Amino acid sequence: MRIDLRSDTVTQPTEGMRRAMYEAEVGDDVFGEDPTVRRLEETVAALLGKEAALFVPSGTMGNQLALKVHTRPGDEVILERTCHIFNYESGAPGLLSGVVLHPLDGEGGILTGEQVAAAVRPGYYWMARSRLVCLENTLNQAGGTVYPLENVEAIAAVVRGHGLRYHLDGARLWNATAATGIPEHVYAAPFDTVNVCFSKGLGAPVGSALAGPKDLITEAHRYRKMFGGGMRQAGILAAAALYALEHHRPHLAEDHAKARRLAEGLAELPGFRLDPDRVQTNIVLFDVDHGDALRTVEELKADGILMVPFGPATVRATTHRDVSMEDIEQAIARIHRRFGN
Amino acid sequence: MRIDLRSDTVTQPTEGMRRAMYEAEVGDDVFGEDPTVRRLEETVAALLGKEAALFVPSGTMGNQLALKVHTRPGDEVILERTCHIFNYESGAPGLLSGVVLHPLDGEGGILTGEQVAAAVRPGYYWMARSRLVCLENTLNQAGGTVYPLENVEAIAAVVRGHGLRYHLDGARLWNATAATGIPEHVYAAPFDTVNVCFSKGLGAPVGSALAGPKDLITEAHRYRKMFGGGMRQAGILAAAALYALEHHRPHLAEDHAKARRLAEGLAELPGFRLDPDRVQTNIVLFDVDHGDALRTVEELKADGILMVPFGPATVRATTHRDVSMEDIEQAIARIHRRFGN
Amino acid sequence: MRIDLRSDTVTQPTEGMRRAMYEAEVGDDVFGEDPTVRRLEETVAALLGKEAALFVPSGTMGNQLALKVHTRPGDEVILERTCHIFNYESGAPGLLSGVVLHPLDGEGGILTGEQVAAAVRPGYYWMARSRLVCLENTLNQAGGTVYPLENVEAIAAVVRGHGLRYHLDGARLWNATAATGIPEHVYAAPFDTVNVCFSKGLGAPVGSALAGPKDLITEAHRYRKMFGGGMRQAGILAAAALYALEHHRPHLAEDHAKARRLAEGLAELPGFRLDPDRVQTNIVLFDVDHGDALRTVEELKADGILMVPFGPATVRATTHRDVSMEDIEQAIARIHRRFGN
Amino acid sequence: MRIDLRSDTVTQPTEGMRRAMYEAEVGDDVFGEDPTVRRLEETVAALLGKEAALFVPSGTMGNQLALKVHTRPGDEVILERTCHIFNYESGAPGLLSGVVLHPLDGEGGILTGEQVAAAVRPGYYWMARSRLVCLENTLNQAGGTVYPLENVEAIAAVVRGHGLRYHLDGARLWNATAATGIPEHVYAAPFDTVNVCFSKGLGAPVGSALAGPKDLITEAHRYRKMFGGGMRQAGILAAAALYALEHHRPHLAEDHAKARRLAEGLAELPGFRLDPDRVQTNIVLFDVDHGDALRTVEELKADGILMVPFGPATVRATTHRDVSMEDIEQAIARIHRRFGN
Repeated sequence: MRIDLRSDTVTQPTEGMRRAMYEAEVGDDVFGEDPTVRRLEETVAALLGKEAALFVPSGTMGNQLALKVHTRPGDEVILERTCHIFNYESGAPGLLSGVVLHPLDGEGGILTGEQVAAAVRPGYYWMARSRLVCLENTLNQAGGTVYPLENVEAIAAVVRGHGLRYHLDGARLWNATAATGIPEHVYAAPFDTVNVCFSKGLGAPVGSALAGPKDLITEAHRYRKMFGGGMRQAGILAAAALYALEHHRPHLAEDHAKARRLAEGLAELPGFRLDPDRVQTNIVLFDVDHGDALRTVEELKADGILMVPFGPATVRATTHRDVSMEDIEQAIARIHRRFGN
Repeated sequence: MRIDLRSDTVTQPTEGMRRAMYEAEVGDDVFGEDPTVRRLEETVAALLGKEAALFVPSGTMGNQLALKVHTRPGDEVILERTCHIFNYESGAPGLLSGVVLHPLDGEGGILTGEQVAAAVRPGYYWMARSRLVCLENTLNQAGGTVYPLENVEAIAAVVRGHGLRYHLDGARLWNATAATGIPEHVYAAPFDTVNVCFSKGLGAPVGSALAGPKDLITEAHRYRKMFGGGMRQAGILAAAALYALEHHRPHLAEDHAKARRLAEGLAELPGFRLDPDRVQTNIVLFDVDHGDALRTVEELKADGILMVPFGPATVRATTHRDVSMEDIEQAIARIHRRFGN
Repeated sequence: MRIDLRSDTVTQPTEGMRRAMYEAEVGDDVFGEDPTVRRLEETVAALLGKEAALFVPSGTMGNQLALKVHTRPGDEVILERTCHIFNYESGAPGLLSGVVLHPLDGEGGILTGEQVAAAVRPGYYWMARSRLVCLENTLNQAGGTVYPLENVEAIAAVVRGHGLRYHLDGARLWNATAATGIPEHVYAAPFDTVNVCFSKGLGAPVGSALAGPKDLITEAHRYRKMFGGGMRQAGILAAAALYALEHHRPHLAEDHAKARRLAEGLAELPGFRLDPDRVQTNIVLFDVDHGDALRTVEELKADGILMVPFGPATVRATTHRDVSMEDIEQAIARIHRRFGN
Repeated sequence: MRIDLRSDTVTQPTEGMRRAMYEAEVGDDVFGEDPTVRRLEETVAALLGKEAALFVPSGTMGNQLALKVHTRPGDEVILERTCHIFNYESGAPGLLSGVVLHPLDGEGGILTGEQVAAAVRPGYYWMARSRLVCLENTLNQAGGTVYPLENVEAIAAVVRGHGLRYHLDGARLWNATAATGIPEHVYAAPFDTVNVCFSKGLGAPVGSALAGPKDLITEAHRYRKMFGGGMRQAGILAAAALYALEHHRPHLAEDHAKARRLAEGLAELPGFRLDPDRVQTNIVLFDVDHGDALRTVEELKADGILMVPFGPATVRATTHRDVSMEDIEQAIARIHRRFGN
């Protein structure tokens, strides 16, 4: 049996979720008449403590809408070098918003207030105008770590001091909350806008939401239409997202336990380097001593275990709803069989 | 009972369609692993006689992807002044592709080869570079009329002669085929790319598809990601679209009969100006003698009949699956009651 | 001897102008230290009755900066189909500002308030946001005609009523003033921004200026840097422009007399269609009966007379400082010799 | 007497240069008829060993045209964090080309082939497309150092291996040649396009040139028009640039000697940190022990010596034609008087 640990995006909709979609009450959302979309947007806004929220077909669209409403072409966006916006959105910030990106190198992906302050441009007209700071929580490339609230707030002070805007890519913010018990709205509070995703750990088939103040979300609504993200009876998808919030979100901590168990199992093996104590949520990163991540990924695949190369010598495994603790034990057993001595 | 003739986008998914979504086999389409999406894309490509197709969340995205793959910033796009791209896509051609639009005035929305030829810019570097010609079939603003194949082909000759590209906004191409019996792939043949919609007459909740040569669709796939249109288990939506192609498409001619009947009913009234013989598909346009379309729309609404203002003195009614012939008769009766003398 | 009537841009700097450049006091304008540039900008602002002005290397840059400061990507700009911005700026509005253009058809290039009012989009989010109206004075493609102040003001009322912005491409505004005696600042008053050119009738080698309120000109200054129009010791060029304003501007009416004389001479000939009474400034348009403007241009060239094709059957001749009244008589004589019977 | 060491852009045109402008043969360059512009473009192309060159009003425009012809929106440009394009072009790469910038940290501003190779993105469609690598020679922010040819070539190999493009910002390439004796065309050879500047050490009032293969320069010509850089009788400026190439270029090594002497003079002082041996061309960078560059710049200004802050604790002085060796000795004397003990 295949054990797919490539991403938490590969989850299949559950029976209950499928039923929720089947029964969804829908309307034409272009006319603002889809009750299920509206209910989802209100639910998300409340969870994040923001005035309004907008349902979008992807996390990339949520982030890109945030960039769009916060900036004008030629503005500069400060972010961390390993974040999703810099690495996995196909160059969209240039195409859609005409902004330049100013990547900084955080320790374990985490920036300090001082770093951000030093990166803000003085106002000379021959320099780009610093305009927006983006963080990510949890940090995917750093191994699912939670952004310390302390740093979030120190950076917030810099942002306010310079009159900048502040966006959170919270694709896996639910995991931060599950790991720390700190509610999402607390993490979200310092930010102008926050993007959250329903199709990763939550297991919905499609969708994210951008939350923020009413005027910016109204602007984002217009840009969503321009980007081609205006959907008609989107309540079908919103129903799945609502179901996920209610029924899947409470179980996210189980994914974290699975990740921790997997990390422990891997750490016992020679040639695998990782520290299980650093696994905070549902992502496990490990280095292979021989330095060839691709080779290890291929070997694992031969045993029916799917992971992804995440650097020349780094492999990523992500746990999620469709992999049980038994699957994890199974995976560990297979890996020990192959790589143990 | 409310009779909603505002648009064919307001249709609710049918029971069979809901079941198709409920049972849909899905996968992570970002990894290219959703079998239902793939099946839909192959089905559409085959129907339109193109090498490949791409599922997208909206017709606007389909059209905008076409503009994107055909042009570079600063290029000029020739189209008709009443078309969807010029009027109802929020200015996206400027934002996403940096193109300038060159609108021509067709008779009843229909351009001739001569008009297009005259609009193509000479190659001087101080002029925009003419690059793309877009048509729409059927023509929404002209009242759902079918684009004569003869004009399509005459313009195609101009396009080829100048080395331009050619895109069809075929949001309601299915209606053209239903009205004339000419298969979609015949209408599509002269074009490089064709966009079709599943959420209008076909009644699916969400989605369109852009079809064309493999290399352009591969490019469009990358841009879809940038625009934020990359969805995960999109097979849920694709299942509805496939169901619509199989089960709803054969019934489109019924919508046309309803529109024709509605037009006849309206034409009998004093103060309503329209020629029922010009109703070719599912759209009915009529002028009101007093010149205030908004007033008429409000009065109709008071009788539970929803239409949309479409010009200072013009009203549009659109028939679709969720309005039966009985509903149409009912609507005519109510309208006669109010507006007859 | 060659008589070059292709454009008023072909003029050579005069001896006095060359001396002005030779003696120009200059500084590094990127640091705001060029006294001659500053003097030019203040002179132009005063002439146009605006708070500030910005020297730019071309009329295209002046117009494009105006579009940039007035709009955001996706906005719509209303203009006339024959204007410079729509036809002769290479598609720059799309590339630089991401705007869509909404061309209207004026009579003789002149729009009415009603036309503009009808073109302003309602605020639906699925439509582009109307944002800016651009006029041109004098009208190049219409044959150098002066925009009636009455229309300028009627359109201004529409612009204000809808909260839009208003820009004047006044590349040849000097000619309007020379023709009517109405000062430039009166023509400029209803507009937010006005672009004027020093290298057409005024005969300077390089440069235009954009004038408007201080805050917009400060923004334009930043965008000028981005567009690559920030020049160092630009005072060399500004000195020529200042010289032109002082010494050449008072003589513009002579160019108009030459154009009128040329028109009269041409009107006497069979096969040339034009009405000399419509020649208001320094541009003469005429149609050739045989319908082949290119042929006529070639034949004229054989006689050393340079004009430009301006439509399939239309030829344009432009008078300027480097063509004397004697040259015009000479040209008429040669043309009569060839085309008279 | 003021000794202005803020930049080599502050130079005044010399008497000979003013005369060259006064006597320049000019024409309308929009029609391609300016003989002096043409001569300059041919001269530069020959000097750099490229097929063609294009005269532009600023170095920013030259670099931005290169980005434009090499990329499409959404592409990624690899460069060094301290370079001009990343820091001093106002965010233009986002606005004009829609590209994202990928800054790397070189040692002393110098990148290795390995660094560039590691930064090139794999071809996944969810990543930006790596497309262009830009270097700068000499390196302004690193203190005017010459880019080692060895690194230029190692990076060239990476560029070719990945099918990327390669651009050199050679604003001060003349200085690299003056310092090493290696001809400009040797430095230029590995690059597709090279931008050079006439208004820095060469002392011309305005202008740069972009050189490269004919087809790209033809494209750049069209974009120059769009950006607003098409000038009419630009031969006035080109004459000064030609004069600078002939008469000023041979003297650049003198600026280097002045910089070296200044560095030695500063190094003797307590509280100033710099290594005179690292001064390769006309730029001197030094750190102040108290850590407040602005304070030192103010104190120097009080003594009539102008430099610029270049970091929190770093000051830059640039030598050029308008500062003699005597001025440098004078400056050193004044500085010793104030800062010596």
